[in-house]
Formats: sequence, C-alpha cells, structure tokens
Amino acid sequence: MIGVHLEGGTVTVRDVPRPRRRPGFALLKLRLAGICNTDLELLRGYYGFAGRPGHEFVADVFEADDKRWIGKRVVGEINLACGRCEWCARGLGRHCPARTVLGIVKHPGAFADYLTLPEMNLREVPRGLRDEEAVFTEPVAAACEILEQCRIPKSAAVAVLGDGKLGLLIAQTLAAHGADVSLYGHHPERARRAGVARGRAGKRFAWVIEATGSEVGLAQAIEMCVPRGTVICKSTVAARVAIDMAQVIVPEITLVGSRCGRFEPALKLLAAGKVRTDWMIAARVPLREAPRAFELAATRGTLKVLLEP
Amino acid sequence: MIGVHLEGGTVTVRDVPRPRRRPGFALLKLRLAGICNTDLELLRGYYGFAGRPGHEFVADVFEADDKRWIGKRVVGEINLACGRCEWCARGLGRHCPARTVLGIVKHPGAFADYLTLPEMNLREVPRGLRDEEAVFTEPVAAACEILEQCRIPKSAAVAVLGDGKLGLLIAQTLAAHGADVSLYGHHPERARRAGVARGRAGKRFAWVIEATGSEVGLAQAIEMCVPRGTVICKSTVAARVAIDMAQVIVPEITLVGSRCGRFEPALKLLAAGKVRTDWMIAARVPLREAPRAFELAATRGTLKVLLEP
Repeated sequence: MIGVHLEGGTVTVRDVPRPRRRPGFALLKLRLAGICNTDLELLRGYYGFAGRPGHEFVADVFEADDKRWIGKRVVGEINLACGRCEWCARGLGRHCPARTVLGIVKHPGAFADYLTLPEMNLREVPRGLRDEEAVFTEPVAAACEILEQCRIPKSAAVAVLGDGKLGLLIAQTLAAHGADVSLYGHHPERARRAGVARGRAGKRFAWVIEATGSEVGLAQAIEMCVPRGTVICKSTVAARVAIDMAQVIVPEITLVGSRCGRFEPALKLLAAGKVRTDWMIAARVPLREAPRAFELAATRGTLKVLLEP
Repeated sequence: MIGVHLEGGTVTVRDVPRPRRRPGFALLKLRLAGICNTDLELLRGYYGFAGRPGHEFVADVFEADDKRWIGKRVVGEINLACGRCEWCARGLGRHCPARTVLGIVKHPGAFADYLTLPEMNLREVPRGLRDEEAVFTEPVAAACEILEQCRIPKSAAVAVLGDGKLGLLIAQTLAAHGADVSLYGHHPERARRAGVARGRAGKRFAWVIEATGSEVGLAQAIEMCVPRGTVICKSTVAARVAIDMAQVIVPEITLVGSRCGRFEPALKLLAAGKVRTDWMIAARVPLREAPRAFELAATRGTLKVLLEP
C-alpha cells in the first residue's frame, strides 16, 4: 500500500506493507484524510517526529474482532489509551500517560491506504454526514473541548484569535453554543462565512481563545482579556513563548491549555449542520501527491487540504 | 516626618511634610510596616517605580471624616478603587482600572511616619492580634486569594514552590484550609516550622502554587503538575518568562494569575493563630535605617524585615 513519511523536513510517499492489526484493533481502509497544522509542525520537527503522520480521517472498517464493525464508515479518537489507569477510569484516556497518539506519538498515522486503531476508539459516522464533513470531526472535537473545560455562559462575548482552520471551527462551535463570537484574523471575509462577527480593534473580552498558531498570539490574547478573564490556549507552536507574567498575575487572568476533545459532541454539531466545513476545503489531493499537498497546506492563507486514496 | 524614597536602585530616607488627607481619606500614624519582595522589585525598577514604597502596615487612625475611626488600630486594603465602576460594583475594587495602589502605583506608601488611605479601605485589627502579627495581613490576604479564585478540595494534595515569605504564608493558609501541603524550597527546616510536609522529589500534584519569586519557578511548577491540574502563579518577577506552551496545552494545564486578596479571611486566620508569623520575623529596623533594612531584606535567606517609626 501507499504511506506518507515525514523525516528531516521532507515529505515522501512510500510503498509499504499493509499494517497488521493487533487483538482489539480494527484495520481501517482510508476514505479521506485532512492535513492539520500539527502535521505541518511535525514536519518542522515538533516532538522530534519521524514517521507516518495523519490523525484526521474517515475510513471503512476492513477487519475487526467485533464483526459488527466490519463495513462501517467510521472516524476515530486519536489517543490510544491503556484502558487500565486512573485517567482511563475517569474517562480521560486522552491524558493516559501510557498512550500513543495516531500519527503523532508512536502509532502510524492515517496518511496511508490502511491504518489500525483500537475498536474502542471508533465512532460510526451518521448516515447523513458526508466524508468531506466527517473528516473534520477531530478538529471540531478539539473545539468542543473548550466547552468541556470551561463554563462559558451561553450568551457570553468571546474573542477567537486566528481565522485559520482551527479558529474557524472554534468560532462556529462557540456560536452554536450561543456565544457572541468576534473573530480576529487576517481574512475579513472568513468571519462572515463562519457566521460570526468580525473582531473590532480595542475591544476586550472575558473569554479569549488563542488559535493563531503563532508565537505572538498568546501575548495578544492576554492583552485582549479583562481582569479575572480566561484565555484558552489552543496553539501548540513548537517554539518557546516569552510571557510577561505580571500581565497575567496583576489582572488575575486564567490561561487554560486545551487540546483534544470527545468525538460525540463534534459529530452531533456536524450532523446538525451547525458547523459548516464545505467552504473550508481548499483542495483534494491524491495520497501519492502528498508532498504537493503538504506544500499547499503550508502556503499562507490555505485552509483545509484533504488527502484521498 | 520621615519618609523612605526609592529611585534608580537607591533607598534614601527623607524629611518630608506630613501628607494631607483628602475627603473620605484617613490620616494614619504608622505603628509597624513590613518589607515585601514587591518592594525589592520596585527598587529594581519594576513598574518604573520612583517614590515612597510600603504596603504592609499597621497604624493608628490619626484623623478621619468618620470620627469613630479615630484612635483605632487598623490595617488597610492597598488598592484605592474609584468605587463607581463595574469592577467596584462587583466587589472587585482591586481590579478597578482607575485604581492607584498604596506604595506601588501613584499613591505614597506606608514606609513613613504617616500615610493616607480611604476610610473604606481600613479594617480594624482585632484586640488580641499583636502588631507584629497584624502587619502580615496583606500577604496573608494574598494567600487567601488563592482560595477565592480556585476551589481546592479540603483534603487535596497541594505543592507550594518557594519557602520565602509568601510561600510560607501560602503553605500555612492552605494547611488551615485542610489541604495536604508539600513545601518545596531551599530551607528544609522551614516546612517543619510552617507545620507542613517537606516536598519530595518526583511527586506530581493536581494543585501547584508557584511562589518562588524566580524566573525558572513557573517551568518547574508546570513540570510538577498532573494533566488537567492547576498552577497558581504568585511570582510577579519583573522579567519576561519563556514557557513551552506545548507543556501547558498537551496536558491541558490551567495557569491562574493570582494577586491581592480580601483582608477579612486573613485577619481571621491570624487572629485564630492558624497562620503563625513570629518565627518569620528576621529583624525590626527603625525607619531612618531603611537602607540597611532593604539591604538585609534583599539578602538571600532573610525572611520578614519590619520597619518601625
């Protein structure tokens, strides 16, 4: 089969053996995958990564222990947890210290004709949801995670910093929650397309979401936050960020690190049409042209690049 | 009267006119004051400070609009709020954007024979509380602020990083709350004197208080925090701090900036003998020898230096 390989800043496509599934795992046949900013960071050396990336996907179940899965169209939670530790017992397998992570930490990713994932990670895609919508489940889940971590009042004014892929999904997710979202970014037309307000200069907020993917985003977010307000940090940039902690401590601002979320609320939002993704697709590129797809995805202003087998 | 003056890294003692009180303000005659790490930071240029420092004090009310105050022994909240904005209406005058701050921002401090403060800022010192205890009210209030901002369960394991003045008061305050406190610092005997456990290497916590006053403290605190845990940041060091935000975002850690607190719970803790401060007093120095007092306070390992008129 074909598999994408990242190493030393280079994307290659390799002919590799189909992976074998271990007990409890399903073998999945890829239908569609998405390139995330994390994949671009991995290419730059984040996590010292070398291997097969890809954690946003839709696939058909090809083999599984539980035969009822076979032939089902699925998405999958990306954290492969041990299932036995205290984190797993609390339903927080995505913080399991023994976990591997699909396409990020020690488990080959979805940018290949086939991939494996534990059956417990699979979620069936609702019939009405198209592949090109369902492929956004993982990043929408990351947006939903904000609402799992923070009690944002339904009508709260919220600033979303960054109108890239993740920022746009967060803006829509919070708008669906009922928040009064202002989107800040370099592309004024994107706020309208996401159905939210365009951020006005000088305004300050009790809730600020930092999703710029940039090293300066955090300082901007802190500056836009009122005393006792909350900045939710979504940008895992590979570099260290310098913060003036007095600007956090004096106004008693809270910074919340936020990462992956549960898939269920994300699938619901997508199935209900409350998060729209069609306009966010910049290109569909065959897997074997992954180098071009990565190049395109890394081009300033490009939204989602999809990979298809 | 005598007043202490900081400017360009130098402490001087000046003969200055007694301050005039404005309407709504009391004129206070100093009984005892304390040197805080913030005063040392002001000396180093934090806030671009030049003027009279001092925000930890006990005093007698000498003049006031409300004659019932006169002769009372008081401490005072250090934020001088406008009393009219939304922050003041919410009882958060310490975040009033128009505020000045005693001895820190545009209001002459307590290191003088006399000082002024709004009568609404005064709190009477309970009869049983000695001056050398009551002078700790402001930093104990800063410790109590942690419990106002965060719901730390009563029996929670909490790490306090830093066994300097503030760290020791925080450790005692959280122990009085019922927390299982581990104190980390350079002076092993201080944990015993504070009545808490000495921190063991390699242990991790859901609650970590950063009170080292050092630029490296925050990174250490983040490292000691479990996923989904909370780091409460108390060190306003003047320099910028470099953080690897991936270490905050991947484990979804929350950082809470925490500053001044209400005086009422602090006075209660001190009056009940639940926070003991006698052993923390390194020296009592006359106001006119303030340069020596500052030098002593800045010496590594020195705890509280008090100034007396």
